[in-house]
Amino acid sequence: MRKIRIRGYGVSLPEKTMKFGEQIRYRLTGEESQFNLAVDACKKALENADLSINDVDCIVSASAVGVQPIPCTAALIHESIAKGTDIPALDINTTCTSFISSLDIMSYMIEAGRYKRVLIVSSDSASMGLNPSQKESYELFSDGAAAIIIEKTEENKGVISAVQKTWSEGAHSTEIRGGLANLHPENYSEETKEEFMFDMKGKIILSLSKKKIPEMLTEFLKENNIEIADIDMTVPHQASSAMPSVMKKLGICEGKYINIVVEYGNMVSASVPFTLCYGLENRMLKTGDTVLLIGTAAGLTTNILLMKL
Amino acid sequence: MRKIRIRGYGVSLPEKTMKFGEQIRYRLTGEESQFNLAVDACKKALENADLSINDVDCIVSASAVGVQPIPCTAALIHESIAKGTDIPALDINTTCTSFISSLDIMSYMIEAGRYKRVLIVSSDSASMGLNPSQKESYELFSDGAAAIIIEKTEENKGVISAVQKTWSEGAHSTEIRGGLANLHPENYSEETKEEFMFDMKGKIILSLSKKKIPEMLTEFLKENNIEIADIDMTVPHQASSAMPSVMKKLGICEGKYINIVVEYGNMVSASVPFTLCYGLENRMLKTGDTVLLIGTAAGLTTNILLMKL
Repeated sequence: MRKIRIRGYGVSLPEKTMKFGEQIRYRLTGEESQFNLAVDACKKALENADLSINDVDCIVSASAVGVQPIPCTAALIHESIAKGTDIPALDINTTCTSFISSLDIMSYMIEAGRYKRVLIVSSDSASMGLNPSQKESYELFSDGAAAIIIEKTEENKGVISAVQKTWSEGAHSTEIRGGLANLHPENYSEETKEEFMFDMKGKIILSLSKKKIPEMLTEFLKENNIEIADIDMTVPHQASSAMPSVMKKLGICEGKYINIVVEYGNMVSASVPFTLCYGLENRMLKTGDTVLLIGTAAGLTTNILLMKL
Repeated sequence: MRKIRIRGYGVSLPEKTMKFGEQIRYRLTGEESQFNLAVDACKKALENADLSINDVDCIVSASAVGVQPIPCTAALIHESIAKGTDIPALDINTTCTSFISSLDIMSYMIEAGRYKRVLIVSSDSASMGLNPSQKESYELFSDGAAAIIIEKTEENKGVISAVQKTWSEGAHSTEIRGGLANLHPENYSEETKEEFMFDMKGKIILSLSKKKIPEMLTEFLKENNIEIADIDMTVPHQASSAMPSVMKKLGICEGKYINIVVEYGNMVSASVPFTLCYGLENRMLKTGDTVLLIGTAAGLTTNILLMKL
């Protein structure tokens, strides 16, 4: 076990909501921005942890789509919360599961003594790139941010085990193709605009996920000598309203996973840490619990991480 | 020491060169792309290492500007070199020093047994975003890619120590502001086009670097009980033709660092691994050497990593 504990957390949502039937979605308006949500979530996490930024020794931005192409998003966030310090700032990106990847990776650096306390912040503003003609994604996504501070502990808690797998058969099932090196913004026009929008082939992802993930989870649990019944709560990526059918396929019973798709939608990278914060805040997750974080991401990537709170 | 060794390496450059006085710069043309350079470098690294992709258990893209906003660049590269496998793919980004950050981070995961062999590939195509009216940057950058495969070893070699610091006083000294969440490509126009171009304030960066880095290096060497004279060769980021003055300020003598700015320019994230490959290929770096990787990045971030080859 890589011994870490969650010291504090914070979330930030836009003010405006949209409703699609019962589904509530949060969308940026006016002066709001992904960047401001990220900074706000970090400040709340520091307050919740009763820490100042000087108590943190690494800042990780774990988002799918960054704020600017250069510099990395963590450096921009650093300017708002850590200017004048020399705290290292870096981005880690596996799209929707960037938070799990970052928690996984940083747990090694904390375990090895490189860092004592790391602030991980995920933020995304999917609404900026949604295509109104793709109803499936247009009505699914929310904008949001969540930040979590992890720290070294001597207690018997932390990351028990984690695994990531990428199956690039799904590399083009979730895309925003334009904006960076493959298609520079100078190519933006009325004819090309969909290239700069979010393009999700939900059915392909769901089919690939259902084929690959059960086997991956079974193998992971077996390697760690753990049964599904030993897991107190699962924190899944809020990928879509198909979550109950995916959970059923994985053998995770109702009541044993947090499903807030109706209330919050899919916040891309912010979904997993937001759901973790939601679970902590609403006491669905308690000290001593064995918790499974699991999510699929564009790639197609899947991350699984088992931790003891 | 986190015991790893370099198992293989490969680089890839565009065919076309431009000359500015004596300075040679490599620039993409026609069907060439950053993505293709990255894939080509990976294939060469595998060949150089005499390995197949199945011998690698993690793919890291360590670039400043990715190929697409979604998915992460490593997942797209995965599709060309690892399709059909489940090798995890992820991006790590600290702009120009992304390779050093990735080598640093991955050395912890290899040391802990999580991965045995990691392919790290850096690629950037600065030419796509250069502003011809900013002569300083327009004449400095090249496009390119470099890939390095690292693996666990039992020999007495690997990462001795590493440090990263970020001073966000420099957050806006090197930027591409447009293309992602802060300024969506739909805002691209004749009036706004410079927002989507590379914007570098070289003098501010140089001044901040000269103020901060000597102290950082002195502290790093002291903590590791190492003298400048113990370092066989320094592999610096090819930031600019001011490199000799920076090296002098750091106390690193001529002949003890690799300077290929004239021949290759600044390849953004690809510069450090390209220079490392260049040094290995030209036997400026040999087995048993103590090597210092050092670079500044947008942020302003500085990474220093000491390794024994």
